Amino acid sequence: MVRVGIDEAISPELLKDFPPEAEIVRIPPDLNKEIPLDFWILPYFRKDAAAAFSHFQGVKVIQALMAGVDWVIPWVPHGVTLCDGRGIHDISTSEWVLAAILSAQKHFPHYRDLQNRRQWRSEPSATDSFIGGGKSHPGLYRILSDDLSEKTVLIVGYGSIGAAIEARLQPFGARVIRVARTAKTSPQVFPVSELQRLLPDADIVVAITPLTAETTGLFSTKEFDLMKPGALLINAARGPVVKTDALLHALQAHKIQAVLDVTDPEPLPADHPLWSAPNCFITPHIAGSTPEFIHRAFRFGAAQVRRYLNGQPLENIVTSAGY
Amino acid sequence: MVRVGIDEAISPELLKDFPPEAEIVRIPPDLNKEIPLDFWILPYFRKDAAAAFSHFQGVKVIQALMAGVDWVIPWVPHGVTLCDGRGIHDISTSEWVLAAILSAQKHFPHYRDLQNRRQWRSEPSATDSFIGGGKSHPGLYRILSDDLSEKTVLIVGYGSIGAAIEARLQPFGARVIRVARTAKTSPQVFPVSELQRLLPDADIVVAITPLTAETTGLFSTKEFDLMKPGALLINAARGPVVKTDALLHALQAHKIQAVLDVTDPEPLPADHPLWSAPNCFITPHIAGSTPEFIHRAFRFGAAQVRRYLNGQPLENIVTSAGY
Repeated sequence: MVRVGIDEAISPELLKDFPPEAEIVRIPPDLNKEIPLDFWILPYFRKDAAAAFSHFQGVKVIQALMAGVDWVIPWVPHGVTLCDGRGIHDISTSEWVLAAILSAQKHFPHYRDLQNRRQWRSEPSATDSFIGGGKSHPGLYRILSDDLSEKTVLIVGYGSIGAAIEARLQPFGARVIRVARTAKTSPQVFPVSELQRLLPDADIVVAITPLTAETTGLFSTKEFDLMKPGALLINAARGPVVKTDALLHALQAHKIQAVLDVTDPEPLPADHPLWSAPNCFITPHIAGSTPEFIHRAFRFGAAQVRRYLNGQPLENIVTSAGY
Repeated sequence: MVRVGIDEAISPELLKDFPPEAEIVRIPPDLNKEIPLDFWILPYFRKDAAAAFSHFQGVKVIQALMAGVDWVIPWVPHGVTLCDGRGIHDISTSEWVLAAILSAQKHFPHYRDLQNRRQWRSEPSATDSFIGGGKSHPGLYRILSDDLSEKTVLIVGYGSIGAAIEARLQPFGARVIRVARTAKTSPQVFPVSELQRLLPDADIVVAITPLTAETTGLFSTKEFDLMKPGALLINAARGPVVKTDALLHALQAHKIQAVLDVTDPEPLPADHPLWSAPNCFITPHIAGSTPEFIHRAFRFGAAQVRRYLNGQPLENIVTSAGY
C-alpha cells in the first residue's frame, strides 16, 4: 500500500487510472494537522506547496504535474525524490509554439487589429509589422504575409518539448538548429555556450529552457543585437529567461519581433510598456492549459505510482546536478 | 521561338528561368494596339485581363499565376489552352490554414484583444470565445486554450493545397477526412455529395475548393446547423463558397467559430456586420501573398514555357468538364 496525496479539489474522474493498491489521501486547501503520506501529487495550482509540504510526514516522492519545477526545488528536503512533469506539456506547448510562429509569419496580430478597426488592408502600418520589411517587391506584387518554409528555427532548451516542436516543424520545410545545456549528437544539439555564435543564422528563436541560474537572463541586449533584423523571438519558457528591459528596447528599436506566453513580471501589470511594444504579441501564460492537459498529467501521475508500487525506476527524477 | 507576354511591371529578376528561345514581350498597362503573342503569363493583379486579352493575336496558351481561375474561364475562347497555377499556392496557403487553425485553437484573436486592453486574463469574456465552452473543468483547472491533437479536420476541396494541409497536420495527431468533387481511393476522398453526412464529425472544417457553380454557397444554414457546437470553419477558398448571411447568423448564435481569409463581398465594407461577429477572425485575403510566392509562380511559368517549346504536355490544363 502506498499513501498518495491528491488535492481535494481534483475531480474523481482524474483518478481512475490510479492502481487499487494506492490509498488516495485527499489534501484540503487549509492544513492544520500532520498527514502521513508516501507520494505527493503536486498540482501546479498549489501555490502554497512549501507550506503544505511541511504538514506531511514520511513523503518519499513528490510528483510535480508541470515541466518547470524551479519554484519547487528550493524547499524539497534531501532524501525526498522530486519528479517533474517532463512530457506532459509536449502536445499543448509545442502546439502553442507552432501557433505563435505561424501567427507571427502571417502577421495575424496586425490583421486582428485591422479587423477591430474594420479595415480590409492598411499599407502604411504594414511596414511597422515587418510585412515585406527589407524584402524586394518585384513587379506589382504586394507582400502581405510571410512563409515558414525554408526559415531557420533555433530551439534553445532542446528537450522533450523541443523535440515535439521539431516534429511539428518538419513538414513545413523549416531548418532546425538545436541548443541545450549539454551538447549531444544524433540529433546534433549544440551546447548553450554556442548560443551567440548560432543566433545570427536564425529567422526564428524559440526559448523553451527550464528556469535555472544558468538560463535566467539568457536573452539580453547582446543576444538581441546578434539576431537578424526582423527575426522572431518566441518565449514559451519562463519570463525571466528573457531580460524584459533589453527585449523592450529591441522591440522599440524595431530590431526584432516577439511572441510571449510568459513575461517578467507575471502577470504583466496594466501599466507595463511591454503591452504596447511594437511587433509584440502576448498571451497570458495559456500554452499549457488545454482541456486534455490535466488528463495527460494525472495519467502520468498514476503511471508513476504504479512504477513506485512495482519497484520500477521512476521517470523524470530531478537531480541536483541536472535540470 | 515562342512569344511570351509578360506584364511590364514584372521585375527582370523573375524572368531568369525563362529559356533563351522565349521572346519576352512586355505588356503595358494600357493597350491600344494589337500584339502578336503565343503564350500569355497572366498575373493575378491584371484585373482587366479580358480587355487586355482582346488586344492579343494568336494566343495558344494562357498561363494564369493563381489557383483560382473562376474569373478567367468565362472569356477564354474555345481553342485557347488555359492553365491554372495549381501547386504554386501550396506552401503559402497551407501555412495560412495551419496558422488559422492553431490561432483559433489557442484563442489568439481573443488574447490579442486582451493585450490591447492591457489585461492579463479575463474570465467573463472567455466563455464568449468558446474557451472551455461545453467542457468539464475537473478540479481547479482553468481551460485557457485548446489542442489540435486528436481533433477531426474535414478538408473540403481536397486537391494540391488540401494535400499540403494534410501533410502539415500529420505530426499534430489530427484525424483528416477528405472531400472533393469526385470520390477517390488511396487516400480515400469522399464526394462532395456526402458533405452533409460528414459535417457532424468535424471539429474543424476547411473550405479550400475552387469557386464553381457547384461550390457557390456550398456552406449555408443547413451546413452550419449540422456542424458540432463550437466547431471551427476556415475559409481559404473564395468568399462566395460560404453564404455570408448564413455564416453571420451561425456566428451570432454562438453556434460555430470562423477564420476567414476571403469574404463575400470582398473587400469587406467598413460597415459590414461580419467585422464584429463573435468568434470570427478575418484576414484580408493575404494567404497567398508571401515574398517567395511570386518567385515560385514565375518559376512555374518558365517551366510551362519550356514544356511548350519542347513539345511536352503542359501541366495544369483547365478542362471545361473539370475544375
